[in-house]
Amino acid sequence: MDFRTEKDQLGSISIDSASYYGIHTNRALHNFSLAGRPVHMDLVHNLVLVKKACAMANQKTGALEPEIAGSIIMACDLIMTGTYDNYLITDALQGGAGTSTNMNVNEVIANVALEQLGLPKGDYKKIHPLDHVNLSQSTNDVYPTALRITAIYKVRALADHLAALQESLQEKEQLFSDVLKLGRTQLMDALPVTLGQEFAAYAKAISRDRWRIYKVEERLREVGIGGTAVGTGLNATMPYIYMVTDLLRELTGLGIARSDLLMDTYQNMDVFVEVSGFLKACATNMIKISSDLRLMASGPAGGLDEIRMKPLQAGSSIMPGKVNPVICESVLQAGLKVIGNDAVLTQAAYLGQLELNAFMPLIADTLLESLDLLIRSVDSFDRLCIQTLTANADNCKKHLEKSTSLSAALIHHLGYEETATLTCAAKEADMTLRNYLIKHKVMPEATVDLILNPRQVTKPGIPGMS
Amino acid sequence: MDFRTEKDQLGSISIDSASYYGIHTNRALHNFSLAGRPVHMDLVHNLVLVKKACAMANQKTGALEPEIAGSIIMACDLIMTGTYDNYLITDALQGGAGTSTNMNVNEVIANVALEQLGLPKGDYKKIHPLDHVNLSQSTNDVYPTALRITAIYKVRALADHLAALQESLQEKEQLFSDVLKLGRTQLMDALPVTLGQEFAAYAKAISRDRWRIYKVEERLREVGIGGTAVGTGLNATMPYIYMVTDLLRELTGLGIARSDLLMDTYQNMDVFVEVSGFLKACATNMIKISSDLRLMASGPAGGLDEIRMKPLQAGSSIMPGKVNPVICESVLQAGLKVIGNDAVLTQAAYLGQLELNAFMPLIADTLLESLDLLIRSVDSFDRLCIQTLTANADNCKKHLEKSTSLSAALIHHLGYEETATLTCAAKEADMTLRNYLIKHKVMPEATVDLILNPRQVTKPGIPGMS
Amino acid sequence: MDFRTEKDQLGSISIDSASYYGIHTNRALHNFSLAGRPVHMDLVHNLVLVKKACAMANQKTGALEPEIAGSIIMACDLIMTGTYDNYLITDALQGGAGTSTNMNVNEVIANVALEQLGLPKGDYKKIHPLDHVNLSQSTNDVYPTALRITAIYKVRALADHLAALQESLQEKEQLFSDVLKLGRTQLMDALPVTLGQEFAAYAKAISRDRWRIYKVEERLREVGIGGTAVGTGLNATMPYIYMVTDLLRELTGLGIARSDLLMDTYQNMDVFVEVSGFLKACATNMIKISSDLRLMASGPAGGLDEIRMKPLQAGSSIMPGKVNPVICESVLQAGLKVIGNDAVLTQAAYLGQLELNAFMPLIADTLLESLDLLIRSVDSFDRLCIQTLTANADNCKKHLEKSTSLSAALIHHLGYEETATLTCAAKEADMTLRNYLIKHKVMPEATVDLILNPRQVTKPGIPGMS
Amino acid sequence: MDFRTEKDQLGSISIDSASYYGIHTNRALHNFSLAGRPVHMDLVHNLVLVKKACAMANQKTGALEPEIAGSIIMACDLIMTGTYDNYLITDALQGGAGTSTNMNVNEVIANVALEQLGLPKGDYKKIHPLDHVNLSQSTNDVYPTALRITAIYKVRALADHLAALQESLQEKEQLFSDVLKLGRTQLMDALPVTLGQEFAAYAKAISRDRWRIYKVEERLREVGIGGTAVGTGLNATMPYIYMVTDLLRELTGLGIARSDLLMDTYQNMDVFVEVSGFLKACATNMIKISSDLRLMASGPAGGLDEIRMKPLQAGSSIMPGKVNPVICESVLQAGLKVIGNDAVLTQAAYLGQLELNAFMPLIADTLLESLDLLIRSVDSFDRLCIQTLTANADNCKKHLEKSTSLSAALIHHLGYEETATLTCAAKEADMTLRNYLIKHKVMPEATVDLILNPRQVTKPGIPGMS
Repeated sequence: MDFRTEKDQLGSISIDSASYYGIHTNRALHNFSLAGRPVHMDLVHNLVLVKKACAMANQKTGALEPEIAGSIIMACDLIMTGTYDNYLITDALQGGAGTSTNMNVNEVIANVALEQLGLPKGDYKKIHPLDHVNLSQSTNDVYPTALRITAIYKVRALADHLAALQESLQEKEQLFSDVLKLGRTQLMDALPVTLGQEFAAYAKAISRDRWRIYKVEERLREVGIGGTAVGTGLNATMPYIYMVTDLLRELTGLGIARSDLLMDTYQNMDVFVEVSGFLKACATNMIKISSDLRLMASGPAGGLDEIRMKPLQAGSSIMPGKVNPVICESVLQAGLKVIGNDAVLTQAAYLGQLELNAFMPLIADTLLESLDLLIRSVDSFDRLCIQTLTANADNCKKHLEKSTSLSAALIHHLGYEETATLTCAAKEADMTLRNYLIKHKVMPEATVDLILNPRQVTKPGIPGMS
Repeated sequence: MDFRTEKDQLGSISIDSASYYGIHTNRALHNFSLAGRPVHMDLVHNLVLVKKACAMANQKTGALEPEIAGSIIMACDLIMTGTYDNYLITDALQGGAGTSTNMNVNEVIANVALEQLGLPKGDYKKIHPLDHVNLSQSTNDVYPTALRITAIYKVRALADHLAALQESLQEKEQLFSDVLKLGRTQLMDALPVTLGQEFAAYAKAISRDRWRIYKVEERLREVGIGGTAVGTGLNATMPYIYMVTDLLRELTGLGIARSDLLMDTYQNMDVFVEVSGFLKACATNMIKISSDLRLMASGPAGGLDEIRMKPLQAGSSIMPGKVNPVICESVLQAGLKVIGNDAVLTQAAYLGQLELNAFMPLIADTLLESLDLLIRSVDSFDRLCIQTLTANADNCKKHLEKSTSLSAALIHHLGYEETATLTCAAKEADMTLRNYLIKHKVMPEATVDLILNPRQVTKPGIPGMS
Repeated sequence: MDFRTEKDQLGSISIDSASYYGIHTNRALHNFSLAGRPVHMDLVHNLVLVKKACAMANQKTGALEPEIAGSIIMACDLIMTGTYDNYLITDALQGGAGTSTNMNVNEVIANVALEQLGLPKGDYKKIHPLDHVNLSQSTNDVYPTALRITAIYKVRALADHLAALQESLQEKEQLFSDVLKLGRTQLMDALPVTLGQEFAAYAKAISRDRWRIYKVEERLREVGIGGTAVGTGLNATMPYIYMVTDLLRELTGLGIARSDLLMDTYQNMDVFVEVSGFLKACATNMIKISSDLRLMASGPAGGLDEIRMKPLQAGSSIMPGKVNPVICESVLQAGLKVIGNDAVLTQAAYLGQLELNAFMPLIADTLLESLDLLIRSVDSFDRLCIQTLTANADNCKKHLEKSTSLSAALIHHLGYEETATLTCAAKEADMTLRNYLIKHKVMPEATVDLILNPRQVTKPGIPGMS
Repeated sequence: MDFRTEKDQLGSISIDSASYYGIHTNRALHNFSLAGRPVHMDLVHNLVLVKKACAMANQKTGALEPEIAGSIIMACDLIMTGTYDNYLITDALQGGAGTSTNMNVNEVIANVALEQLGLPKGDYKKIHPLDHVNLSQSTNDVYPTALRITAIYKVRALADHLAALQESLQEKEQLFSDVLKLGRTQLMDALPVTLGQEFAAYAKAISRDRWRIYKVEERLREVGIGGTAVGTGLNATMPYIYMVTDLLRELTGLGIARSDLLMDTYQNMDVFVEVSGFLKACATNMIKISSDLRLMASGPAGGLDEIRMKPLQAGSSIMPGKVNPVICESVLQAGLKVIGNDAVLTQAAYLGQLELNAFMPLIADTLLESLDLLIRSVDSFDRLCIQTLTANADNCKKHLEKSTSLSAALIHHLGYEETATLTCAAKEADMTLRNYLIKHKVMPEATVDLILNPRQVTKPGIPGMS
């Protein structure tokens, strides 16, 4: 193997001359291995995109010669295709607020650019990772900017999947609008509802998620690019700052805007806490809905068996023929991870100190994982569970008829106490409420049937009153 | 002691005849004592307010006779003054989705109303807790409606306190705009900033909290009143439903609106998760800012001593003269509670099943506690800490001058590597960077002073370039 | 009203001359009101107990004159009866690491002692809150010591209640040992079990909680008393340190021991994190078990209805005759609070800095609340739910017979794939597996009945093999 | 590409004939992709180990022919070398309680065994994934057993690393035993301590972690192997059950024991909550200690600069010469992840229902990640931070001398109030306490020096008293 020598303030080391990364990455690899996996590749690619915008802006302001800027820009384009991913490998839980990732990216860009120019890797006189690639920048401005861009892309994907899920739920709302069933409060028999009404409520909850997720893009688009080390903008000129923001807007197609107080974006992570809080709210809905479906699909013999899920795989290595609600279970687990990530992100956010939050890598890692988990969960839940769900209307009806749930409809006619007494008596006698009332001549049969009309009872109004 | 007898479906019990509550409350007191404290009194009072609106609507629709409705309304008004708080005592962590609180309120209203009419307590023929006071209602619609009203009042109070805090922070921003100091990233010496800039960033973060909190009222104002047991509206007529919503809007002065899907408000608690997530974001900012201030006020001999807090109390029972940042510490603890409450509320939210979330009492308890904690924290932080804070400009300057933090300003002139070498050498020699550069004739003194100008360095641009 | 004047390093203030607390408490009341409730009274009383031991030790070493020590000791005894609780009122979320609580206790002890001597309150020349009552002490050693004592008392109470719950569960294990029922995995029909086996598993889980809680006392008994301000023991002599530990052991009847590194008890809160982790494990079991019971008691018409809970109160204000699993629901909510408290305590623990954890008040507040919640939950769950639970053996049997759950018993005879095919076919045909096998002559009836024997199937072995 | 056809209860599919996995894995790959990464490979390998023990036991009891058992055992050995890892790829967040992982392992073992016998893959007549490889087993017993084995191995590794860290901290305790410095409580100047004392306290905390982690192995070694589907042991004979437990003990070298209530291990996850709670306690200590070190290493100009960390990499892409406490920062982030995982695991644990916890995959994922994170963190913290740490004794001394921290030593001589007044006056006058006392003739110089002796003050006793 061939080696080149690189040096930094701590000394010199030998590096495989074929390596696109250099000394700073090398040190980071020795220092960080806690996560055992690299930084999210989408974030790294978007960091490269930010670097491209910076090079373009530096060229326009005259800070970089066209040839150098051009090489850097071309290198960025190449790297974003994924070809050099094996060299973008700093650990996801690195210390240093993302500096190692930034250094890694700077080095790979420099060496890819040098290679394009026919120069040997590591020959940084022409294109230096810091003096040229990182010009007018600091980890502390490019890294969070790349994070915000990555998050916005994912937020949009999530909003799309939520829209699809909402639509599927609404289709079921229509499809199940005639399926009368027993409503349950606290798992105990309550009043009649339709299965369609239940799916309408699910759709409504998901529509709120969709709205929240859609709106949150506004929060994320204010970036601190140009603030350099502490947000004051040292080494970045005002023309550069305006230009780079404009370029980011063009390159991404997103409404990227300059924060009116760059320092704020370095210190205060509440925006990410807010976004993560929305993801957590979405996870809450996903867990609640998927748990309801597991309940309704339970059995078949020893459970509710009111809906049926499409069998997707054998459910047991020992109980042949068993089928489980596996998508609901996987979605629930993803939801718990999102909730856990939110707790981690929140702590990382408030642990920032003075001019910087050193725990940006953890904030990025948890936020992007949560977004990925929800994007995949919502899609999987929609396609593999909701769309193929069917109602077992017979069982729905059976539960309803067996129950004394319609007793509430009598209150207006008999008062609460009398109704309670009759309901308990019917249960005791193991009779339906209807039959009990008729048998004991509490009311004429016609009146009973007028009042205890389940279809009527799923709508506002007082049963038995015109 | 004199007793009256009350009965329910489980049997009869004796109740102190002076008691305003009845059998249902009595049973609840035996069943629930986990929290060891009653439901939040603001919530209870607003539940009484909702009852008042319901009685008014029931009167208008003709469901309640004017005399009875009038007595109920008068009783509600009396109870809201606080006179009967000692009888509104069901435990905060009750099972039953709030039914016991609702029963308690129904009973107290009925008995206060009976007393107003000169009738004995417990003589429910005239005014019955369920048949009259609870008419057209269910715990499941009145309780969450009362919670939303309570939350909105508190949200408004919090927004006001946040506005005041933001203003105080902005005053400090002005006041400290000339206090040059050392910025720190990862607690290590970084570039110069002004103390004013730091407070500007704090003010910005709080302004986002204020905006979020202000906007969240929209989410809370959609109520499910009229849905009765499961959200379908059984026993509530459409005219009643419209009327009661209008009355609530009038009585509260809040923009209360009817949800377009009542059932959704019973099942899906994501709105409370969202609100709590905002409170958590606010807590995050409060913890971060108060921790920064503790750092900056640390010492005085063995800490940063860059700001001074007004002494509020002796800090130690053994170290005379010691003064501690006690308000910051209390605010941090309140913030952690808010974060913990958010975790609890989130779990309670997703554990709802089918037509109801049985854990509404816990959702209410955590949400209202978090709101109270932040209202008090923000106010206390503002009045007792921020407003009386002073800068120790001398120490700020001292730290700045002692540091090599201005080295970044040299990059443009010398390149990253050369600058790094010189900076390390200056540290090694225990010299200021300025003196080192001059002594070793790296640049002429005038140039050095032009470039290493701390004031200049707190603004965008390249030092030493016109 | 009459006033006396007290002063501290910040100046003088007027205090109601009837007040048992003085200037330091007074300032604390102005500074802290976030929680809106005082420090846990058990903790305060145990702090008084620690003060008593200190006074006794100070007398023995000659640091306090017998008369003064005697007055202090007598005052401590009086205060521990609860008579002066209205004066022990510093806020639960105070800053200052508990200093205000310590000051409050010092002042009340001094004034009660003075009163006993016939001297006016506030006349501290004879008995001074700090120079006499607090002699050889610091908040930082007495407060955590009192917390550990309080926690041990509560830990013991919890262990006792867990033992009682375990016993009740084991009684049900015996009682339900013949109730055959359908086991469910992932809520889907699985193999037969007995209801007794399920309760055996619950009892086993609770027995682990009991063991953990019992053992944790060892962790808590190492106290840092005598370390004074930072754990080095300044102003506390070695004889005093040994003596006060011995006295605490005698006064409490608990195995209090001196930590071999006092400073460690000031800085590192992992012991409380460990204890809270055990409480969380207990909460996990309580939530799991109570949720299982809610499932098994669900219905009756639209749920499993395999067990019946004793009705404790009316379940609905609108659905007469409805009864809910309210104790399970309250227990679950308490469990979630314990889990939330653990998260808060953990954060408070790691946020300690250098020589002290300033967030001891929050650690104390959350730990003691969790202990109280579990003590009450375990007791309430035992008495109001488990002890009065009955089995609905008919429904258990019905679910079992309706299911194809015994298919696993065929694997040995037919192989997995053939069994799966037959099981699905039986479901399709809406027949029991037994009848399907017989009808399609897969096996002779006698063989089928030998293999598909539910009682046999609840034990290890291969059905149908001798 | 060549294909083979496999079928299950849902139908037939084509599978690449070179694939070692079959139809069940194939379906799982379509159903689960939420995590986007496979199950932890250590868990999968240990699942193969469990399968090996089962095959050995099945051979001994005569349930499997020697040739088949032998092939399965050989296949297990081959797979554990890692050669087939690319085929062990079911998603980490799968639904189905681990069934897909079990199916995957069964299929790969069967096909590797068939290959060894010269038979084509997928030709399951001879060796069937379920009828032979999975014989006497269920996912529900082998998967948690494999998890416990994996956890024990990792727990032992963690205990070793904690021992090493403790030793390094104790070396620093010795090395720094003479470094006098200012103690700080609530970040404010308090009493003198030695840097050695601080490290002694850190070592003590870590020793508790080590003890806890060491002891927890006892909890994990009780396995439920042999319980099959629901813990009742259907299809597993008692001789097999005893034998497989013995074999696991031999094969692993760990003290594996049979649970005396197999069903309990299926339902109740409190043991994992307990273990995770210990990991959380360890994380708490790691965060606290590493945060302290970051504080003490802060500056150098604008911070405490009392200790120095070995520079490991350049700290900034824009501030040349800056070095950051990157290992501490990475360790803190890993600690937060452990805390987050504990929250997730706790929820997954209590969400188990009836006979099974369907969320075992998430429990496994979070537990093993936390163990890995701590193993790596503790090692990295030890080697890259603690071992190379040095004291800056000069700065330690400077802070001490500048402070009025010794005032507490005067209380015995002057009383609290007089001491407080003098201390404040000295601060006001910007004088050391010593000089102030001498200048104002409060005491003779010799007495002052006797009392205000910092070395003396770091030990128990009353300064100035013999």
